[in-house]
Amino acid sequence: MFRQRLAADAARIQAHIDRVLRGFDDLPVVQGMAWATEGGKRLRGFLVMESARLHGVDEGRAIWPAAAIEAMHAYSLVHDDLPCMDDDDLRRGRPTVHVKWDDGTAVLVGDALQALAFELAAHPECGDAAVRADLALTLARAAGAGGMVLGQALDMAAESAAEPLTLDQVIALQAGKTGALIEWSACAGARLAGADPGPLAAYARALGLAFQIADDILDVEGDVAKAGKRLQKDAGRGKATFVSLLGLDGAKARAAELVETACSALDPYGERAECLREAARFVISRKS
Amino acid sequence: MFRQRLAADAARIQAHIDRVLRGFDDLPVVQGMAWATEGGKRLRGFLVMESARLHGVDEGRAIWPAAAIEAMHAYSLVHDDLPCMDDDDLRRGRPTVHVKWDDGTAVLVGDALQALAFELAAHPECGDAAVRADLALTLARAAGAGGMVLGQALDMAAESAAEPLTLDQVIALQAGKTGALIEWSACAGARLAGADPGPLAAYARALGLAFQIADDILDVEGDVAKAGKRLQKDAGRGKATFVSLLGLDGAKARAAELVETACSALDPYGERAECLREAARFVISRKS
Repeated sequence: MFRQRLAADAARIQAHIDRVLRGFDDLPVVQGMAWATEGGKRLRGFLVMESARLHGVDEGRAIWPAAAIEAMHAYSLVHDDLPCMDDDDLRRGRPTVHVKWDDGTAVLVGDALQALAFELAAHPECGDAAVRADLALTLARAAGAGGMVLGQALDMAAESAAEPLTLDQVIALQAGKTGALIEWSACAGARLAGADPGPLAAYARALGLAFQIADDILDVEGDVAKAGKRLQKDAGRGKATFVSLLGLDGAKARAAELVETACSALDPYGERAECLREAARFVISRKS
Repeated sequence: MFRQRLAADAARIQAHIDRVLRGFDDLPVVQGMAWATEGGKRLRGFLVMESARLHGVDEGRAIWPAAAIEAMHAYSLVHDDLPCMDDDDLRRGRPTVHVKWDDGTAVLVGDALQALAFELAAHPECGDAAVRADLALTLARAAGAGGMVLGQALDMAAESAAEPLTLDQVIALQAGKTGALIEWSACAGARLAGADPGPLAAYARALGLAFQIADDILDVEGDVAKAGKRLQKDAGRGKATFVSLLGLDGAKARAAELVETACSALDPYGERAECLREAARFVISRKS
C-alpha cells in the first residue's frame, strides 16, 4: 500500500510544482527551480498527503503544503551542495544546480524555492486563515535558526571542532537538520484538519532519527548508482556519524527500535495509520 | 517629523530583532544574523510602522512585520554580497558576512534570515489569522521568483547579455529587485488594519522607483565614506542604469516626478500622510 501511495503522491506533487512554476517567467533561475524539484523519493510530501488522508482532508488542499515541503527540502539541498557548503556535484543521479548553471544561480534558486515554500504553505487553497497562518508559522520555525538551519550550523561547527561529536550532539544536530522538516510534514495533516498534531509529532521524531541513521548506514553500505549521490564522504572526513558512534550493528538495532517507537506513537489512529507505519519500516530498508 | 520617526522606529526595530535573536542558540550563524541586521536606514521597517500608524494599528503589532521586512532585506544583502553574486566586501561601512565569517556561514545566515522573516510576519502577535496569513502570503510573493528574486535573476541575465538593458527593462528589473519589498512594507499597515492597500501600493511603486534612481545617482555622485559601500561599480561594468539611460539631469528630473506621483497617491489620507510624503522627498535627497 505504501509504495503505491508514495509513487502516486510523488507524481501528483511533481505535477503541482510544475504547474506552479509555469506561472513564473522562463529564466535560468526558474529552470533551476524545476531541475532541483524533479525526482527524489518525495517522502516529506507523502507524509503531508498521508497524514491529511488520515484526517479526511481533501487532496486538493493537502497538495499545497505537500508541494511546499518539497520546495523547502529542494532549496536546502541546492544550498547544501554549493562548493562553500558540502561541495557535491551529483544529486539524484544528476548534476547539481551550481554545476549545471553556476554558483550565483544556485544561491538564487535556493532562495526562490524557500520563498515558494511559504507561498504554497500560506496559499488560500490550503484552508481557512487559521490553518494557513499556522502552516506558515510552523514551517518558518522548522526551517530557520531553531530548526533546519540550526542543524546545518551545528554540522558546520562540527567540521572545524577538535573532537568528533558525541551521540547526544549528533542526535541534536539531526533533529534540526532533517528532523524538523520531517516533523512538519507528518503534522501537516493534523494542522489542515485543526486536530492535535501530538501523536504525529511523536511518530515523526522517531521516524526522522531512524531516517538519518539509515542514511549513515547507506553512506557506508550503499551503492553510488542506486543512491544517486556521492557516498562514504563522512568517513573520509573523520566525521562522527551514528555508524561511527554505535557501530554498524548497533546503528541498525537503534534504527529498528526507533521504527517500533514511531509505529506505536500512531496507536490512537489504530489500523488507519498502517500506511504511515509501513513508511517507517521503509525508511530503514531503503537502498537510496 | 520624518527623520525623528525614522530614527525612533529604527531603534525599536533593532531592539525587537535583538530580542528575537536572543531566543536562538549562540552560534556563528546567529551572530552573523545579528551582524547583518544591525544598522542601515531601516526605511522598509519605517514604512511598515508609519503605514500602521496611519491606520491606527498598535505599535506592538506593527513591530513584527517591521522586523520581518528588515530581516528579509538583510538576507537579500548578505546573499547579494557573496563572491558568486555581486562580490562586495563592505556593507553599511563594515565587512560583509562572508568576509567576517566565511561563504558557507553567509549562505546559512541569509537562509535563516529569510525563514525568520516569515516567522515574524506570521507571528501570533501580528493580529488575527486572516492578517497573518495575508502578510505571509504577500511577503512570499514579494520575495520570490515573481518578486525580488525575479529582479535579481534579471540583473544576473543582464550581466552576460550582449546589449545593455533598455529603460523599460531596467524599470522591470528594479520593480522586482527593490520595488517588491518596498511595496510590501508600505502596504503592511493597511493589511494589519484589514484596509485596502491600493493607495499605499501606488505610493510605494513610485517611491521604489525613485529610490532606485536615487541609488544610481548616488553611485555616480556619492561619497564612499557616507554610503558605507563600494560605489561606481555599475559604470565600471558597462551596466545600464537610470543615469546611463537618462543622463544625470534626466535621472534627477524623473526621480522628482516620481516623488510627486508618490505624494499624490496618498491624497485619500489627506494631511495624516504627510510623514510618508516627507519620506518620499527624503529618498531623493539622501547621501547614503
